[in-house]
Amino acid sequence: MGKLLIVGTVAFDAIETPFGKTEKILGGAATYIGLSASNFGLDTGIISVVGGDFPQEYLQMLRDKNIDLTGLEIVKEGKTFFWSGKYDYNLNTRDTLATDLNVLADFQPVVPDNFQDCDFLMLGNLHPAVQMSVINQIPKRPKLVVLDTMNFWMDNTMDELKEVISKIDVITINDEEARQLSGEYSLVKAAQIIHEMGPQYVVIKKGENGALLFNNGDVFFAPALPLEEVFDPTGAGDTFAGGFIGYLASTSDVSFENMKRAVIFGSNFASFCVEKFGTKRMENLGQQEIQERLKQFKQLTQFEIELTH
Amino acid sequence: MGKLLIVGTVAFDAIETPFGKTEKILGGAATYIGLSASNFGLDTGIISVVGGDFPQEYLQMLRDKNIDLTGLEIVKEGKTFFWSGKYDYNLNTRDTLATDLNVLADFQPVVPDNFQDCDFLMLGNLHPAVQMSVINQIPKRPKLVVLDTMNFWMDNTMDELKEVISKIDVITINDEEARQLSGEYSLVKAAQIIHEMGPQYVVIKKGENGALLFNNGDVFFAPALPLEEVFDPTGAGDTFAGGFIGYLASTSDVSFENMKRAVIFGSNFASFCVEKFGTKRMENLGQQEIQERLKQFKQLTQFEIELTH
Repeated sequence: MGKLLIVGTVAFDAIETPFGKTEKILGGAATYIGLSASNFGLDTGIISVVGGDFPQEYLQMLRDKNIDLTGLEIVKEGKTFFWSGKYDYNLNTRDTLATDLNVLADFQPVVPDNFQDCDFLMLGNLHPAVQMSVINQIPKRPKLVVLDTMNFWMDNTMDELKEVISKIDVITINDEEARQLSGEYSLVKAAQIIHEMGPQYVVIKKGENGALLFNNGDVFFAPALPLEEVFDPTGAGDTFAGGFIGYLASTSDVSFENMKRAVIFGSNFASFCVEKFGTKRMENLGQQEIQERLKQFKQLTQFEIELTH
Repeated sequence: MGKLLIVGTVAFDAIETPFGKTEKILGGAATYIGLSASNFGLDTGIISVVGGDFPQEYLQMLRDKNIDLTGLEIVKEGKTFFWSGKYDYNLNTRDTLATDLNVLADFQPVVPDNFQDCDFLMLGNLHPAVQMSVINQIPKRPKLVVLDTMNFWMDNTMDELKEVISKIDVITINDEEARQLSGEYSLVKAAQIIHEMGPQYVVIKKGENGALLFNNGDVFFAPALPLEEVFDPTGAGDTFAGGFIGYLASTSDVSFENMKRAVIFGSNFASFCVEKFGTKRMENLGQQEIQERLKQFKQLTQFEIELTH
């Protein structure tokens, strides 16, 4: 079983959906990735930063999930990164109402001693310079490095982003970001161009329309589970990424065949994440219901056709 | 092997995509459905109407595909239905430039004697009154009746449409139409409501995002094959429907398990249809390449995960 290191935000979110709104609740990419990966009982650590206003109960909840917080810097006199957003009636688009970087503005990540030997590295959505700094601090290259990013960094720091992309194995981005990064509308062509930038594996997330996994000509598709109700999409992409790398780390197998299973686990966890506000659903997820839903994914996708040629 | 009767338009289309434009070429729902279903070597007939301007070579091409044209009325002094459309750069939206009903305006479908005993009936997109007339002319209810329709009939003839929907087994519509018909945004809820209107099976087409097959609580998903280039989406939905009902008719098996295979065949044929303008690709399709692509669908979707509970 591999050792997994995650770098990303740990944050406060305030979310408004057609179904309700929240006060400041626990959020952040590293939080969702960590909670999702925690379902595999891994040795997992988070590198991030929070302010003195970050509640002890959140720290304790993460520790209870067996997540090592040695790499979580607490800036006592600072305030935790805060994001606020409001979703459209169909939950497919959202407006950002506030982004207060706070302690994140001066964040200098430090890889703690006990994770210098990590086998799996997840670079959550953050400034590419922060992602690069983490890569550079790890003496022996991990078995697999996965990067998540977003259009904001493509708009503002494309050169730095491309430098990080050249160092990694797997990139996870959404369809619009894949088009922006590659300059190609066709996702098949976009994946080819992104391969040439470095990553051997390209995962393109399409929200309610599932996710595509590309590996130099091979392609696999994991649908999103059709749900009666999506309550809050916040964190679904990070939860997907956490399930993906968590499964790979738990099996220490980075073959394409195993990555297929990993994207199914990613979709599986994401389908839970959206059922409640924020991290609530992911804080309380049992092995039985995970297995039940895997069965649903099988029923949703598996068919038997005899090939005659 | 079942006998398949198709009612729908046989038309001229003029199409403009980012890749080029055509003069008047062969089009129409029944044409695409018929060509698609013809891959199964069925006893297939079309009910439709064309004008005196309709070329003999098109008629001959359809007959060469073993499609019976006894039910195709030719109004010598009339003109064939004409549709013209222009696609947006991403091919996901299109503007209709012209819709000249011509002989379609007074179309009274007549079920020919040799298809009164059809086992499979495909009601292509047409005025609901025309669809209902065909249902009413068939003395013994077919084994399976599939209906395709579109938002235009929901906007203008909802009551008549609902009357037809109450008589059929399978409805194929796109995601926006499913939402309009049901008044529900969630496709899972939309399918439930449409079930209550009559159809035991609801197929929701999502274009490049695949298709969902619902059957009272069970759901199956067929992805669209990720393609490097989509050349012309015209007829893809009808080609899907033709592959779906053609496969079912060729196996005479209308179980849910077999419908899963049928939607895969539908997606398979639709992936060919979009590779060239109009019907060109579907006029020249070989068994070998169909089988090759089925293999791609398997690779795209099939995975092995051991369930532990």
